[in-house]
Amino acid sequence: MFESAELGHTIDRKTFREEVPKLRAGLLDAQFDLRENGRFPVVILISGVDGAGKGETIQVLYEWMDPRYLSTLAFSEPTDEEAARPVMWRYWRALPPKGRTGIFAGSWYSDPIREAIAGTLKKGALDQRMDQINRFEAMLVNEGALVLKFWFHLSRDGQKARLKALEKDPRTAWRVTRESWARLKTYDQLQEVAGHVLRTTNTPWAPWVVVEGTDDRYRSLTVGKVILDALQKRLADTRDQNYPVAPPLLPRIDSLDVLSALDLSQKLSRKDYETQLAKWQGRLAELVRRPAFRKRSLVVMFEGSDAAGKGGSIRRLAAAVDARQCQIIPIAAPTEEERAQPYLWRFWRHIPRTGRIAIFDRSWYGRVLVERVEGFCGEADWLRAYTEINDFEHELREAGAIVIKFWMQISADEQLRRFREREKIPFKRFKITDEDWRNREKWDAYHQAVCDLVDRTSTGLAPWTLVEANDKNFARVKVLRTVCERLEAALKGCKD
Amino acid sequence: MFESAELGHTIDRKTFREEVPKLRAGLLDAQFDLRENGRFPVVILISGVDGAGKGETIQVLYEWMDPRYLSTLAFSEPTDEEAARPVMWRYWRALPPKGRTGIFAGSWYSDPIREAIAGTLKKGALDQRMDQINRFEAMLVNEGALVLKFWFHLSRDGQKARLKALEKDPRTAWRVTRESWARLKTYDQLQEVAGHVLRTTNTPWAPWVVVEGTDDRYRSLTVGKVILDALQKRLADTRDQNYPVAPPLLPRIDSLDVLSALDLSQKLSRKDYETQLAKWQGRLAELVRRPAFRKRSLVVMFEGSDAAGKGGSIRRLAAAVDARQCQIIPIAAPTEEERAQPYLWRFWRHIPRTGRIAIFDRSWYGRVLVERVEGFCGEADWLRAYTEINDFEHELREAGAIVIKFWMQISADEQLRRFREREKIPFKRFKITDEDWRNREKWDAYHQAVCDLVDRTSTGLAPWTLVEANDKNFARVKVLRTVCERLEAALKGCKD
Repeated sequence: MFESAELGHTIDRKTFREEVPKLRAGLLDAQFDLRENGRFPVVILISGVDGAGKGETIQVLYEWMDPRYLSTLAFSEPTDEEAARPVMWRYWRALPPKGRTGIFAGSWYSDPIREAIAGTLKKGALDQRMDQINRFEAMLVNEGALVLKFWFHLSRDGQKARLKALEKDPRTAWRVTRESWARLKTYDQLQEVAGHVLRTTNTPWAPWVVVEGTDDRYRSLTVGKVILDALQKRLADTRDQNYPVAPPLLPRIDSLDVLSALDLSQKLSRKDYETQLAKWQGRLAELVRRPAFRKRSLVVMFEGSDAAGKGGSIRRLAAAVDARQCQIIPIAAPTEEERAQPYLWRFWRHIPRTGRIAIFDRSWYGRVLVERVEGFCGEADWLRAYTEINDFEHELREAGAIVIKFWMQISADEQLRRFREREKIPFKRFKITDEDWRNREKWDAYHQAVCDLVDRTSTGLAPWTLVEANDKNFARVKVLRTVCERLEAALKGCKD
Repeated sequence: MFESAELGHTIDRKTFREEVPKLRAGLLDAQFDLRENGRFPVVILISGVDGAGKGETIQVLYEWMDPRYLSTLAFSEPTDEEAARPVMWRYWRALPPKGRTGIFAGSWYSDPIREAIAGTLKKGALDQRMDQINRFEAMLVNEGALVLKFWFHLSRDGQKARLKALEKDPRTAWRVTRESWARLKTYDQLQEVAGHVLRTTNTPWAPWVVVEGTDDRYRSLTVGKVILDALQKRLADTRDQNYPVAPPLLPRIDSLDVLSALDLSQKLSRKDYETQLAKWQGRLAELVRRPAFRKRSLVVMFEGSDAAGKGGSIRRLAAAVDARQCQIIPIAAPTEEERAQPYLWRFWRHIPRTGRIAIFDRSWYGRVLVERVEGFCGEADWLRAYTEINDFEHELREAGAIVIKFWMQISADEQLRRFREREKIPFKRFKITDEDWRNREKWDAYHQAVCDLVDRTSTGLAPWTLVEANDKNFARVKVLRTVCERLEAALKGCKD
């Protein structure tokens, strides 16, 4: 969820100066259209970590847009009037009418998150509130509203650095209060609660946009672009029936993303590889034989570009465990029987019972990878799939499964090298088909799809592990080590 | 929720014999089309009170439809295989493929309802499960499935009578077990839990159809017609994009409904009226002055045909309370400002604070009455409104409001008499307009809309009270008495 927002995105002054005039013109135009045809209201939520630039961003929006048609709505302790009415009353009061934009600094999420961190709102009650919020937002969107939810994120160190910088500057020092520093202490709790809240309310009709808050220029430009894209898309939609329209995914405004940030040059020597492989395979063999594991199960899933070495990693993994305990499920095109069912059905049927292991060679993420890129399903279908997949993995987790998800990444050059090699070696020739060459042409589209899926489906319960796979030795050991570490953490403290 | 299913619906043998052949032919045709084009699966849930004819109905469906393309899926205690996997796994296994129909005897609702009655599943956890179920059903429907959820209802006496009848007949006596009788004891708990479950899962894409279970012929015919209507509507829908299609509301197959069941001849003499009016007005005055009421609020809402006497009842109600404590909110066509907001906004703005009373003369039900009948909003919009309205009233209730909803019913003849009278009396002439005469022509459409709204929005927390209003005295006293009784029940046991 937060991976893309911990990469250290920055935009240099020159790019910023070039981009802003275009963006401003676009925003003013869109705002004019919105006002003139007045068909729908725009609801913008600005939330996130303290010191991540919420206030600054609102200032920037006021500079860039026509402030006469913006309202900012801030909420602190409920007033007398508000406390005497249902919780949502004060937000209803503040809703912008059609044709206008309301910026919510603090929103219906603020209180539940604060109370959950303080421990006054328990897990079940928190989920009830989130369900209520989902229904409320669905109603808004069905009534025509464009709902944009921003979450500004800082890494722990990033937050510390931001607070220090703000404190040093006499113009901003007043912003940093004792509470700001206190909140740094509850950073982990906030991340955990926020991760859960963002996952359960990341609906197709009102998904979250998580933005890295460190760099002012990057943050402002991202928010501006998301708003502009969403406005333009919504204004161009001429269906008269109210219909949920999903806002765009996070735009790429610099060259940094979770995949490009990987250091693919990482290597392991033959000797180190053999030592480590033996070590982790041994560890895994012990772990899955622990009596505590009988109440859990393990679902390991591999995705990656063609020739990224999924098969090799899977073999090393399977070698460490009893074959009777472990199923490898290769996912190819769905069978006729599978096509007659909802797309998740063919994965549900292979869900392991407790005490067992299932290794998926490709997975349910096909929906948001190949099906998205090749156009095998409509945009609405793959957009809702992120939520459905999160729900699915949540159910697995609830039933005791440990869900481990690998994306194996190789460079385009390395892929080419491996393709050529495969063509030469007789027993590997079956592994390379025309389709592989065709997929290669869609490298960029797949790249974007992978970044989006990490943003939307890397959750606290089932995070993605991105594997630098240019060196097979390094990749295989990282896979085995990750499985062991996740398994160890899950079984920690369990009696055997 | 259950009102329409406690009226004692019956279908005589002759009508049944006439209807069944047409219905069977229709069902077989539709099933053939479903199989041939195989575009979607049909998921039918058969649930409800014990002894309400769940098993019999399934038998009938097997008689009427082509059994080769039906499967019935029954679930009791989870098997070993099932217990070792996520709760939903066994239902996924059982899903019918496209082109086929799966009848679920017992479903994903059975366990949560049973556990909630037994007290092992608390309120918060129950709601989490319901949220999970809503997401699951939304996914099914988005994937193309037609989901039909039946709840067979019996009144408490009805259940007793059914069990006795089954026990007496040697062919069915085996069906009645000790558990069946034990369940009669938990009747009220089941009603409460089921009411909550049905309300929270009554989604626009998979609403519940509540069917009275007493009469075999009525029950079978209703279920058959609902299935046929839904199948035909869905088959005729040629949109290639998967899109939730709401199944039809409960069809009318006899002349009995919640409105026609009212005894409009009920009267109160002038003298009785004056005594009772004084009594209940006095009681109300005391109740709203109780210190315990300061933590609650009262939302009373009047709907009814034109000239049904809403105004008169409202005046008698308001007369009993301090004018400073009470607001009367007449609802006319929305203002320009109101039209620029979601339709519930104009009601939210008038929500009273604690210790106060709001009386709405017409209400948020306009959406599913006038807007539905006159076509002011699309079908999808008014269909989702039932859920949104229930959520709204739930929020009011959570904040301490007591929500009382009146439908004032007069006969067509009485309305005509009152219209004519109004035209004659100078100071009443303003009350009658051309629009009133036009509305009168849509009497039947309004009648149907009222029956549907009672079915979908009469909940445990906010039930409808239908008022027999041909006699104004009777109606006014019933209104006052209902308000007093609801208020007394709500404040019962509260310290002043």
